[in-house]
Amino acid sequence: MNTKRHIVDLPVYQPGKPVDDVKRELGLSEVIKLASNENPYGSSPLAKQAILTEIENSNIYPDGASVELTAATAGHLGVRPEQLIWGNGADEIILMLARSFLEPGDETIMADLTFSQYRHNAVVENAAIVEVPLADGKQDLPAMLAAVTDRTKIVWICSPNNPTGTIVTERELVSFLDALPKSVLCVLDEAYCHFVDDPDYPDSIRLLDRYPNLVSLRTFSKIYGLAALRIGYGIAHPDVIHAINLVREPFNTARVSQAAAKAALSDQAFVDSCRENNLLQRDYLQGEFDRLGLAYFPTQANFILVDVGMPSREAFDRLLRRGFITRAGWSKYPNRLRVSIGTAEDNIKFVAALEEVLKEATVRK
Amino acid sequence: MNTKRHIVDLPVYQPGKPVDDVKRELGLSEVIKLASNENPYGSSPLAKQAILTEIENSNIYPDGASVELTAATAGHLGVRPEQLIWGNGADEIILMLARSFLEPGDETIMADLTFSQYRHNAVVENAAIVEVPLADGKQDLPAMLAAVTDRTKIVWICSPNNPTGTIVTERELVSFLDALPKSVLCVLDEAYCHFVDDPDYPDSIRLLDRYPNLVSLRTFSKIYGLAALRIGYGIAHPDVIHAINLVREPFNTARVSQAAAKAALSDQAFVDSCRENNLLQRDYLQGEFDRLGLAYFPTQANFILVDVGMPSREAFDRLLRRGFITRAGWSKYPNRLRVSIGTAEDNIKFVAALEEVLKEATVRK
Repeated sequence: MNTKRHIVDLPVYQPGKPVDDVKRELGLSEVIKLASNENPYGSSPLAKQAILTEIENSNIYPDGASVELTAATAGHLGVRPEQLIWGNGADEIILMLARSFLEPGDETIMADLTFSQYRHNAVVENAAIVEVPLADGKQDLPAMLAAVTDRTKIVWICSPNNPTGTIVTERELVSFLDALPKSVLCVLDEAYCHFVDDPDYPDSIRLLDRYPNLVSLRTFSKIYGLAALRIGYGIAHPDVIHAINLVREPFNTARVSQAAAKAALSDQAFVDSCRENNLLQRDYLQGEFDRLGLAYFPTQANFILVDVGMPSREAFDRLLRRGFITRAGWSKYPNRLRVSIGTAEDNIKFVAALEEVLKEATVRK
Repeated sequence: MNTKRHIVDLPVYQPGKPVDDVKRELGLSEVIKLASNENPYGSSPLAKQAILTEIENSNIYPDGASVELTAATAGHLGVRPEQLIWGNGADEIILMLARSFLEPGDETIMADLTFSQYRHNAVVENAAIVEVPLADGKQDLPAMLAAVTDRTKIVWICSPNNPTGTIVTERELVSFLDALPKSVLCVLDEAYCHFVDDPDYPDSIRLLDRYPNLVSLRTFSKIYGLAALRIGYGIAHPDVIHAINLVREPFNTARVSQAAAKAALSDQAFVDSCRENNLLQRDYLQGEFDRLGLAYFPTQANFILVDVGMPSREAFDRLLRRGFITRAGWSKYPNRLRVSIGTAEDNIKFVAALEEVLKEATVRK
């Protein structure tokens, strides 16, 4: 039994503790999870109704081509059906892009702190990973462009970037795409696009016709609140979609997920309400961080990477004991904690707990 | 944009027509699908209840490690949790095995007519595919063993084999495994194991301790009737499971699928009833094929590959016009049609339609 040598050092996913285990072990009656950028407002009632309707079809294979969901999404976005491909979460689109395009010896470019699955899949394909440092939490597109060689196959840009919450602007993106060789794919991961209120955020759909090497990734896990159902998609030139389809498993998205996503698309009121609440709560949390003198990257997403002035793993532990699960351990920013933006009630409680943790640390010094 | 050269000729999945489209286009009020080896008895009420219970959690990511489902399945099978890995259907376990173990230049062995995804994923990994001819519809294990070289990484054995329905016996399998180098994985795809009534069928779980290079694949898509939810698993030595985990996406199975599978496992009465009905209906269909003078491979699964004495695509079209969707187009057996075993009512109707099709063909001659 010989595993590929280049994958043996890949980190194996370590599952987080279930909320119920945290409660029992720490003797807590309430645990608030602000760790996974989930939608604290649930999902659309229409999506839930669609799940219900599909229960009686659980024995029937999904439509492998997601014809109905594709048609609905193409209409919603104003693109052609052949510009869309579906995945078991946007994660699987990343996997399929790597599997279709990356070969040993190829190079692939990404920020030195961004969504982990670009690197993970590039390692599996034995491609050479070129990391370009974030500048003040932002992806440095001129530096990424300067890193392109004739071996570069894919540049990954996450906007808003996970975990820093920063975007690339339309002007930055267009300059980048104008100079990028057409033989290099630019994968723009827009999982958090619905939360953005910066007017300089690019409308990537409008750019697709000009740049046949541009791929936009979207997901139903965030603003649509369907993380449990694993459904995301890619939008690109039909030739790119065809190439991804070559490696797609025939039935890679569940029937219930297709149905729920289609229903969720039709409930714009739910999306608008989640977006508005997130913006309000973002401003609340950023205001509180200002009051507490904590630095953060102003966010365009539903999470904030905040400097808590102590090792983030320590703050994580202290918050956990108070019933808050956050995300720590970014080696580039050892004092920064990623906090998902919760409901008004959760955020007030979180700020109170954080203040206690900060006071404890001051007393200790 | 440069797709990997070795994948460009892969067939892209062509979606089947939705039942409703077939009805409309052919002016039929009833269409019976005997094409995808789905469970005609639906799924357990307990699984449906579990789906319902999960609707309110649709915004929460699944447990990436499937801790509860793993514990339940380990208990059910009598294995350790670290011997199990979950996939988005057993299809994804096949994908992950290929991704973890197959490199360009490696060889992988399979029958010349078996489940298509072994070949598909081997092509994506640029491995050399060695096809060993079926002998009378059966996988020829001595010939497969003789094909092993020092470049062989995986041998794929589908038992019952899709689409022929034949098994490998315990004696055949043990002889094979005794002679197979321990550096070569033997992947035993047992998606249809619950339908088998041949006493010579191996208990692969019992063999795992003796053969650390043995992997058994199982699915909830067949007898458990959860094809819509895409959940399957692999059972193997913990070292093999670890290797597969290296390439697994963090959240590769949906929350609702984990819950439904766990509930389905606990309803043995449903499984027993499906198994009994399938055996009865298998005997009915095989008896009718005998009466009609049609050859078939005696099946151990929930489908039969029957020789209809005319090109199977022609029989497919004639049956479709009568409202029956079957599966045709196996180049090794151009006159054979794969028919899923349906309910008593569906099978009676199918046999009547098949008799009409056979009579038409006789008149034409």
